[in-house]
Amino acid sequence: MTTPGHLYGVGVGPGDPELMSVKAHRLISSTPTVAYFAARGRPSNARAVADHLLTDDHIELRIEYPVTTEALGAHQSYEDLLIGCYDDAARRVGERLAAGHDVVVICEGDPLFYGSYMYLHNRLADRFAATVVPGIPSPVAGAAAIARPLVCGTEVLSVLSGVLTVDELKSSLAAADAAVVIKLGRNLAKVRAAVESVDLLDRAFYVERASGAAQVTCPLAEADADRAPYFSMVVIPSATAFLR
Amino acid sequence: MTTPGHLYGVGVGPGDPELMSVKAHRLISSTPTVAYFAARGRPSNARAVADHLLTDDHIELRIEYPVTTEALGAHQSYEDLLIGCYDDAARRVGERLAAGHDVVVICEGDPLFYGSYMYLHNRLADRFAATVVPGIPSPVAGAAAIARPLVCGTEVLSVLSGVLTVDELKSSLAAADAAVVIKLGRNLAKVRAAVESVDLLDRAFYVERASGAAQVTCPLAEADADRAPYFSMVVIPSATAFLR
Repeated sequence: MTTPGHLYGVGVGPGDPELMSVKAHRLISSTPTVAYFAARGRPSNARAVADHLLTDDHIELRIEYPVTTEALGAHQSYEDLLIGCYDDAARRVGERLAAGHDVVVICEGDPLFYGSYMYLHNRLADRFAATVVPGIPSPVAGAAAIARPLVCGTEVLSVLSGVLTVDELKSSLAAADAAVVIKLGRNLAKVRAAVESVDLLDRAFYVERASGAAQVTCPLAEADADRAPYFSMVVIPSATAFLR
Repeated sequence: MTTPGHLYGVGVGPGDPELMSVKAHRLISSTPTVAYFAARGRPSNARAVADHLLTDDHIELRIEYPVTTEALGAHQSYEDLLIGCYDDAARRVGERLAAGHDVVVICEGDPLFYGSYMYLHNRLADRFAATVVPGIPSPVAGAAAIARPLVCGTEVLSVLSGVLTVDELKSSLAAADAAVVIKLGRNLAKVRAAVESVDLLDRAFYVERASGAAQVTCPLAEADADRAPYFSMVVIPSATAFLR
């Protein structure tokens, strides 16, 4: 009987290939089967970070998820499409594992921090040995990009999604000492309005593609586009001059 | 005239030496002067993570911070002691930089996420070129240790300090979809009581020394000691079975 393979959910960090961990580097280099998510018709961001490690000897499992603008059938929600996508991905990865091959699923940032890997893990970890290798999540890369202390002492840090409503954003921002709003995309103008309405605009920064070659940073007050790339965030670092 | 050195604040990650980034590995290996913080009379946790990279050719700047149990002089607060410690550390590191030597300050986790590096950065970055290299912060290592999705979709993640009062903990926990409480130490019993009082005990985990050789995990309900190591946390992962 074949010994099943081992599933690895491996964070490759925020964008700079040198910010992946030594462990991620080793696992990707030494494991023939590497899987990753990508939007339909688009390059995979995780694969781009690991590109220098992938050789002709690697078998790549590209998992495409549907984009929100795709036409939906009658009685079909976007969530239905996603569930189908993850079920199908789990079947493909599960077949490789069942055949005795280890599979490394590479993920931008950290696998369990808003990462799609969790949907594979939820479907496979009861049948296969699975290990999660954490990665550097985007909020700390955003703080490094602006070189401002993110959170210190007894402060509360909140991580929010730009998809929240203005009121949800406002109440969460008002309650936190420091905050990072991820998933900006088309929500940039809304997030900016929420930040301004709770008087945090003067210490908020806009960070695009943190740590990557195309990184952009500026005060949020100067980020006046309506729309940002998905991989952008607003960082509101600690206001404390504690022990300055 | 001597060209001043470059200051690097380098996160070495949560404990497993293999979880430091490739960039951290390169900078520590190639930079002769390495600085780190340690409590008076105790080994440095950051140095322990990087121990395998430090050779006889490295010059080590050990920065001791006072412990809270030290006797204070009249009219002297613990904060005064810390400020003196950071001022002195900035002077020592600044002297090396001014003499033309690069200095790598290694930090557990991430340098700007509750890290002491920020106090050096605040004192030196106006005079010397400084770069922050992010690292894997403990909350994502905690989630990896228990292999539970930490936060997904549009959920809010809050990072809290165990030093907060029970009421502060309760209101922050009640407002978040997922939370991590760090700096447990002698606050474990209080944090557990707060978690229980907002009905989150059934999905809370206790994680000690995440990713390290001495890692311990268990349901928080089973962690009944009054006191935990400083490097322990409570992880309350997402309750959502979203797209399960």
